Formats: sequence, C-alpha cells, structure tokens
Amino acid sequence: MMARRINLNADLGESFGAWEMGSDAELLRIVGAANIACGFHAGDPLVMRRTVRQALAAGVSLGAHPSFPDLQGFGRRAMQLPPADLEAMLIYQIGALNGMAQAEGGRLTHVKPHGALNNMACEDAALASSVVSAICAYDPALILLAPALSKLAQAGEAAGLTVAAEVFADRTYTDAGRLVPRSQLGAVLHNADECVTHVARMVAAGGIVTASGRLIRTEFHSICVHGDGPQALAVATAIRASLLASGVSLLPLPAVLQASLD
Amino acid sequence: MMARRINLNADLGESFGAWEMGSDAELLRIVGAANIACGFHAGDPLVMRRTVRQALAAGVSLGAHPSFPDLQGFGRRAMQLPPADLEAMLIYQIGALNGMAQAEGGRLTHVKPHGALNNMACEDAALASSVVSAICAYDPALILLAPALSKLAQAGEAAGLTVAAEVFADRTYTDAGRLVPRSQLGAVLHNADECVTHVARMVAAGGIVTASGRLIRTEFHSICVHGDGPQALAVATAIRASLLASGVSLLPLPAVLQASLD
Amino acid sequence: MMARRINLNADLGESFGAWEMGSDAELLRIVGAANIACGFHAGDPLVMRRTVRQALAAGVSLGAHPSFPDLQGFGRRAMQLPPADLEAMLIYQIGALNGMAQAEGGRLTHVKPHGALNNMACEDAALASSVVSAICAYDPALILLAPALSKLAQAGEAAGLTVAAEVFADRTYTDAGRLVPRSQLGAVLHNADECVTHVARMVAAGGIVTASGRLIRTEFHSICVHGDGPQALAVATAIRASLLASGVSLLPLPAVLQASLD
Amino acid sequence: MMARRINLNADLGESFGAWEMGSDAELLRIVGAANIACGFHAGDPLVMRRTVRQALAAGVSLGAHPSFPDLQGFGRRAMQLPPADLEAMLIYQIGALNGMAQAEGGRLTHVKPHGALNNMACEDAALASSVVSAICAYDPALILLAPALSKLAQAGEAAGLTVAAEVFADRTYTDAGRLVPRSQLGAVLHNADECVTHVARMVAAGGIVTASGRLIRTEFHSICVHGDGPQALAVATAIRASLLASGVSLLPLPAVLQASLD
Repeated sequence: MMARRINLNADLGESFGAWEMGSDAELLRIVGAANIACGFHAGDPLVMRRTVRQALAAGVSLGAHPSFPDLQGFGRRAMQLPPADLEAMLIYQIGALNGMAQAEGGRLTHVKPHGALNNMACEDAALASSVVSAICAYDPALILLAPALSKLAQAGEAAGLTVAAEVFADRTYTDAGRLVPRSQLGAVLHNADECVTHVARMVAAGGIVTASGRLIRTEFHSICVHGDGPQALAVATAIRASLLASGVSLLPLPAVLQASLD
Repeated sequence: MMARRINLNADLGESFGAWEMGSDAELLRIVGAANIACGFHAGDPLVMRRTVRQALAAGVSLGAHPSFPDLQGFGRRAMQLPPADLEAMLIYQIGALNGMAQAEGGRLTHVKPHGALNNMACEDAALASSVVSAICAYDPALILLAPALSKLAQAGEAAGLTVAAEVFADRTYTDAGRLVPRSQLGAVLHNADECVTHVARMVAAGGIVTASGRLIRTEFHSICVHGDGPQALAVATAIRASLLASGVSLLPLPAVLQASLD
Repeated sequence: MMARRINLNADLGESFGAWEMGSDAELLRIVGAANIACGFHAGDPLVMRRTVRQALAAGVSLGAHPSFPDLQGFGRRAMQLPPADLEAMLIYQIGALNGMAQAEGGRLTHVKPHGALNNMACEDAALASSVVSAICAYDPALILLAPALSKLAQAGEAAGLTVAAEVFADRTYTDAGRLVPRSQLGAVLHNADECVTHVARMVAAGGIVTASGRLIRTEFHSICVHGDGPQALAVATAIRASLLASGVSLLPLPAVLQASLD
Repeated sequence: MMARRINLNADLGESFGAWEMGSDAELLRIVGAANIACGFHAGDPLVMRRTVRQALAAGVSLGAHPSFPDLQGFGRRAMQLPPADLEAMLIYQIGALNGMAQAEGGRLTHVKPHGALNNMACEDAALASSVVSAICAYDPALILLAPALSKLAQAGEAAGLTVAAEVFADRTYTDAGRLVPRSQLGAVLHNADECVTHVARMVAAGGIVTASGRLIRTEFHSICVHGDGPQALAVATAIRASLLASGVSLLPLPAVLQASLD
C-alpha cells in the first residue's frame, strides 16, 4: 500500500553577501520543508531573514541547517571539535535562525545538520549524541530531520526527540542501507526518470530500495531533493508531480509527523 | 530623596577562544545585569553559554550585547551598514544569545548595543531606529538598556519599548547631558572615591550631575560599571558598597523597571 | 592626437569558496591588467592562486586589490580604521597576493584599492596617505592604480610612487573631474555605444570629458572595465575593439607606464 | 662531545585584536628564532607587523607559523582540507608574513606549521607533502623547522629543503622517538630543573633521550620553548642559562644551519 503523506525537503538560503546560490524561489514551490543555512557555512543574517520570510509565505516549514564553522569550505570539510564547543555552536545557530523565524512571525519546526557535520554524525554515535544534546537543550519539541537508519536518527530516537527520517531522491543505497559512496559508479542518479522511479519504488514499498533491488523496510517521512542547477530543479519538479499523480499528499514536515503518529 | 532601587550593569563574556578577557566571576558578585557578547565583537558560542550559565547561577539578569561584525576591532570601529543588514545582524545575535539562555533554562531580559554601534546609535536617530526595529521584531517585551537622554533611548520610548536608562559611574557629563569626549581631560574618572561620589550625587539628585555641577533631572535605572583590570573591580566594588550603605536596593534589571512602573 | 598606448584593467578573482562570481576567463582576453581580490572582500587563497595563474598565462599584469575586512559586505561598507591597522591590513593582503605571484613564477606590478576603501581614499587625504604608506613600506616599485585627479593619485605622486591614472568607461564625470554620484541620473552608462564613445572621446582628447562636454586635460594610463554580467562583457569587448581599430596599443600596465616615461 | 651551536625557538605574535596573549618581549630576550602567527589561528596584521619589528630589533630570526583557518580553536582542531586548498592557504600566510618582514626591512628565514596542522603533518606523509610543496612553491630557500624524526622533516629533506630539526624542552619521548601523548602521565615536564636536565642530556648526547633513558642518535638544530605563563618563562630562561653555561652558542636559526653545513 502507498504511503499517503510525505514531505519533500531541500536546503535553502545558501547565498552569502554579494554571492548568489541556489534556486530558492523555485524550490519553495516544490518542497514542504526548508533547511535554512545559519551563517556558518552559508547564509548571512539578511539572507536568513529573507529566506525565512519567503518560506513562511510559501507555507513551507522552517528548519535550521547548522554546520561546522567553515564558510570557505561550505561546511564540507571534516573537523574535530570538542563536544561542548560543537553543542554551543549548534545552539547558537539554531537560536539565530529561530530569531529570524520569530521576527517574521513564524516558528522553527526542525533541525537538519549540514554537510560534513551531517555525514559524520550519521556514522559516529558520539557526534550524533552532541547534535541531539544541542537540540534537546534548546527545544526538545523540535523535529530532528536525519537520514533513515543513520546513527543520527537512532540517537535522536534514543533521546526522545521526534525524528523525521529522510531518504535521498538521487542517491543509491547499499544492501546495508547506507548511501553508496560518491566515489563509486552509480552513487548519484542524474536522470529525472531514474530519480522518479527510485522514489516511487521506495514510497510504494515503504522502505529503502537498494541498488541491488533489495527492500529494507523502514519508515521514512521526507525525501531530500536539490535545487542547484536547472537539472536538479527539473528532477525535483518531476518527483513532486509523480508523487502527486500517485495520490500522495505532500505536506510540511510537522503535518507528516503528526500523521505518522495518528 | 534617595532613589530606592537601582541596577548595576556590566559587559561580560568578552573572552574568545583561547583568549581570556575580563573578570566575569568577580563582576557577577557586583552587578545585577550582565550584557553578554554575542560573537560579533567577542564571545564565541562556548563562552556565551558558560557566561549565561554563570549569570543565571548568580541571579543576574541576562542581556544581549550585540555589535557590529568586527572581532578584530572589538566592535569599536565605526561602520556604515545598510539598515536591513544591521537589523538582521542584531536579530541574529539576540536570537543566538537567547538560544543559550533557553538552553540553560533562563530567559533574556534586555538588549544593550556594544561599542561603536552603541555610540553611533546614541547620536544618530536613523541608526537608533534600526536597533529599536530589530528588538521590536524579535521580542517587544525585551528591555532596551540605553544611555539616559540618548537618541537611542528616545527611539526606544517612541516605539513603545521598555527603556532602562543608564548612567556611567566613571564618565563625566557636559551640561548638554552628553558624555565628555574621551579626548578631553577629565572625561574619565579613574579614582574609586571620585566614582563613588559621582554616583552618589546622581542617585541622590535623581538625575545627571554634570562636570560643572549642574543637575539635569532625568530618570535612570541602571549604572554601568566595568571589570577590566583590578582597579575597575575595586571601583565597582566601592560603588556597590556605597549604594548599599546608603540604603539603595541593588536589583536585576527587570525588578528595577517593575519598581519604576509601580 | 590619439594616445598610442593604453591599458584596460578589471577586477578579477572575486569568487569565494563554493560561490562563483565574475567572468574571469573572458575578461583575461580583454584586459591588460587584473586587480585580484586578496581575501578580505572576496577571493580565498585557492581562488587567488588560480586567478594569478590564469592572468600570467594570459600575459595580463598582476595587481593586488586589497579591501577593508568585509567579506559579507563585499568591501563596500564604509569603515573607520586606525591608520596603523589599515596599513598593516594592506601590507598583509599585498604580501599574500604576492605570495601567489611568487608561487606561480610571476610578480606583482600594481596595487588598486577596492570598493569603499578606494572611494574613501579618493576623497580623504589622510586615508590616501595610509594606502600610499603601505605600498611604500612593502615595495615602492609597485605602481599605484588610482582614479585620475583623485586625492589617492595625488598622495601617490607626492610620495614618489609611480601612479597609473585610470578613467572609467561606464561612469560620467562632473565638471570638477569627479564621478557623477550613482544616486544621480546618468551616472552610469549602460549602453555599449555610449561607453565606446565616452572612451574614444577621452582617449582622443587626452583627458576627461565631462557630462557637460567640457574637457579636463589630464594624463591617464588605464581604463577600468567590468565583467559582471553578459552586458558588461559586451561593453568591454566593444571598447577593446574600438580602441584597437583606432590604432591604440592595448598593453599590460607596466608597459604603458614605461611608455609614458619614455 | 657537546654540540657547539644551537637555536632556541618559540611561538610569538599570538595576540589578536583586543586580546593579549604571550610574553613576546621576554621571549625575544631568550630565543633566537620566532615563529610568528599569520592571522589564521592568531595574530592580526597589526600584531604581525609589531612582532616582526620587535623580533628584528632583537636580532631574532623570523619564521612564519601558518595554521589551519581556525581562530576560535586557536588552530588546535583537526581539519581535513583538500591539498590544493591547504597549499594555497599556506602560501597566503607565508606571503602575508613576508610582507610584514619586507615592510620592516627584514626577511623571512623559516616556516614552522602550527598546532593541529603541525601535529598531523608529523604523522601523515601526504599532509607533510602539502606543507613542503607550499614552501617550495613560495621560496625553496626557506628553512623548514620541524620536529626531529617526523614525517614532516623527512618530506622536507626529500624535497631538498633545508630542514631544521627541533626537539622539545618540556616533552618526553617514546623509544620510537615520538612525543609521549599528552594524555599520558609524564608527557609534559613542568619543572624547570627537569627541563634543563632533559635538554642538557639531549645536547650532550647529540640526539633524543627517551623517557626510558634510551638515546636515539639524530641531529637537531633547535629547541622549542614556550612563553605562556610565568613558569614557562622561568623554564625557558633556565634552559638558556644552562646552555650558555655549558659553552653552547645560542644563535638565530640560519646561523645554526649554516654551522651544521660547515
């Protein structure tokens, strides 16, 4: 049976000062949840405020997208930070983005770590625990948006957070349920049809369908899409259309989580 | 007649990374309100969180002390920022500090701009208006802590903010009610006795006593003291002792404001 | 009579990390001198090195394009810095860019301040003097590329620097020889034909032709063009073609300066 | 037989903006080589220029002390950077510091990586190779100051750089010639007498004396001392006095290297 309600999420607000990046306006017509950069890898305060305002106007739920402090490396560089430092940095970023939400009459609904921080927290239980501690300290009612089956998702659940599990529309999975490393052939799906098929299979099956065709049954609530480049937008648009055509409701993140609790 | 309730405030949390600055532990035994650096001129996230925790433990009310983005210049360099940029920066900093307060189980009570931003906003109505707009957008229940008689205080009042007016224990005033510029002789009082006398006169008279001995009648709620250097601490300690000896109640900022509304 | 040798200059290397900006490859086929961002308003070390390498390969002379420390504001925000701080910042940036030149087997030939620093140094003799002091301290053989008739150009000459005077292809001039402020209508020429005509008149007349048609006789060595946007490139291409068609030699900056000394 | 000429080196210029750190004036009376922070972990441009000036006045040889980009973490956080990025960052920092040297009429003689970068490059041949490539690209005549027996020293020698090997006055060594990890008891010698004895043994024996008393015969040219805190200065002073008393000549780094070539 087909899952009835799902969320699409994407990273937004990744411009910085005079430098533009991304297709925020287009993405806000496609997704239901925005992961908004918090100034550490992208997104200056003005970009943050504008992105929050646009997301609210579009009815898209607001997430903080905190990162290692690494503007030049776009948060993609691995770093080793003392846990107390990292937790304080995460609270700083979440608080700052929530400041923008509050100033624009909205509220933050979720947190999704960015880049190297996210990748590392999916594999490293101690790091995952730091991320979760920061969210719990700031506001335990926030949803943690994390890759399905990751140590980050597990840490969130263990701590009692509401965890939204996500799958990737354009990434293939190993039979262990992990992403095929980007260094391997076929790790990334570049074609809209492939992505649409990949997503449709997972939604229909109610789990991750691996590159070998195996099904790993696991609940997921959100599908991560991208907006960098015209092809990415075409892919995201096709996924949205395909899901709607198959009768799936596309919703903001809290609505999907609420539905999964009902 | 003597004012019965007053607040002492000081800037705290001005360390950064490996660099220590200030006498926070000592100051927290002296003052009732802490203006805590928000990462733009001083104070990294870990320092911010630690300072918030210490201030809460000491029963000292928490203020955000936002700045121009100027770590190297300690926020003392004049800058011209587009109003929308500045407002977003202020919301960012206030939100970030409030994140720390929230994580530590406390709440932010006031905002006091730092350094060049504060000096400029005291003289420039447009800049004052940007500061006030940011506070109103974030949370109009926050107290604006601003120099008595300044354009910043006036802008806050005009916008309906609760304004706590402050005077300086170690600075002399012109007959126009402005600080004697630091470039002039006698602008800064270095001696504890002088500061104690200066403060006692102003508290007793209920207004600013200028260098020439004139009284400018104006309500004030807080006295700004400093903690940089052993002498500054001695001055602050002497002021505290003198005020207590004269029967003044020294309170956190909201308590003084509440009293002035009663 | 027509000036025989002239330089075209443009700002390059203004990408930063994941953010691309500008049309460096195209500009390097048009100009003879590159003003390369030094990391303070744009241009991280990798971008700097790559830009230096490309400019050397294109036979374009290398200039440092130092700025106020203002990545988020792209160096366009006015700042007040103590002279000793500013001078050290300029030496830092020039040294860093020269490091790239040295690593790539080239050498730095000129310095042109960027953005707000340049604008302010053109009007403020004290600031101009700081810029000139920094260049003299680092290497008095470097050429200062500065707007014709500016206080910056005057300060450079007074200090014995070789000064290359520049005019702007797309900006109009007042009868006082200053740029018409951007706030006024007609300040910026957007049309390729207008720019070509403007440049041709100034080159033919040997001076600045003002918006009112007056000629201010003043030597200039370089014409500043831009690369942001396809139109800017078309304008720059048209200016280059027009100058070549009229028999002008377009050269790297040192070659033009050398010629003017001959 | 006793080594006749040796260098003492220390890290200097680690203040930043309003934050003071270190005992530069005192250290400059003790050491012969200064490793000067380049702005990435400490040391703003003004601090760099001042430190260069003071070192030149003291006859102390000038070294660049480049770091990962990590002001808040003081360059002590491990980071993974693409090699091309790291090399460009190192050239940037070396060039910037050489700019200060040139402005003050001196010249850079050596490079010593800082903190996590140094620690990691001592163990990781690929990272060591990036450091060495950056120095070779900038100026192959620069001396690489690196821990004796490290992969960094080996990479420098393999590339044909002049390598100055250093030992640590206050750190003990394993029988494999590596530093005893700080996590182990006895890793750091806190007592001046212990440090003096440790250094005297190594100088007398012409190699590293390990914690177990074994001698690893290896040439070294410099001894690293510290200046943070009054005790560190006392230790450094005692080492200097002891070496002079035993007839060792304490020299700037190039003089020691020259002597070892003679």
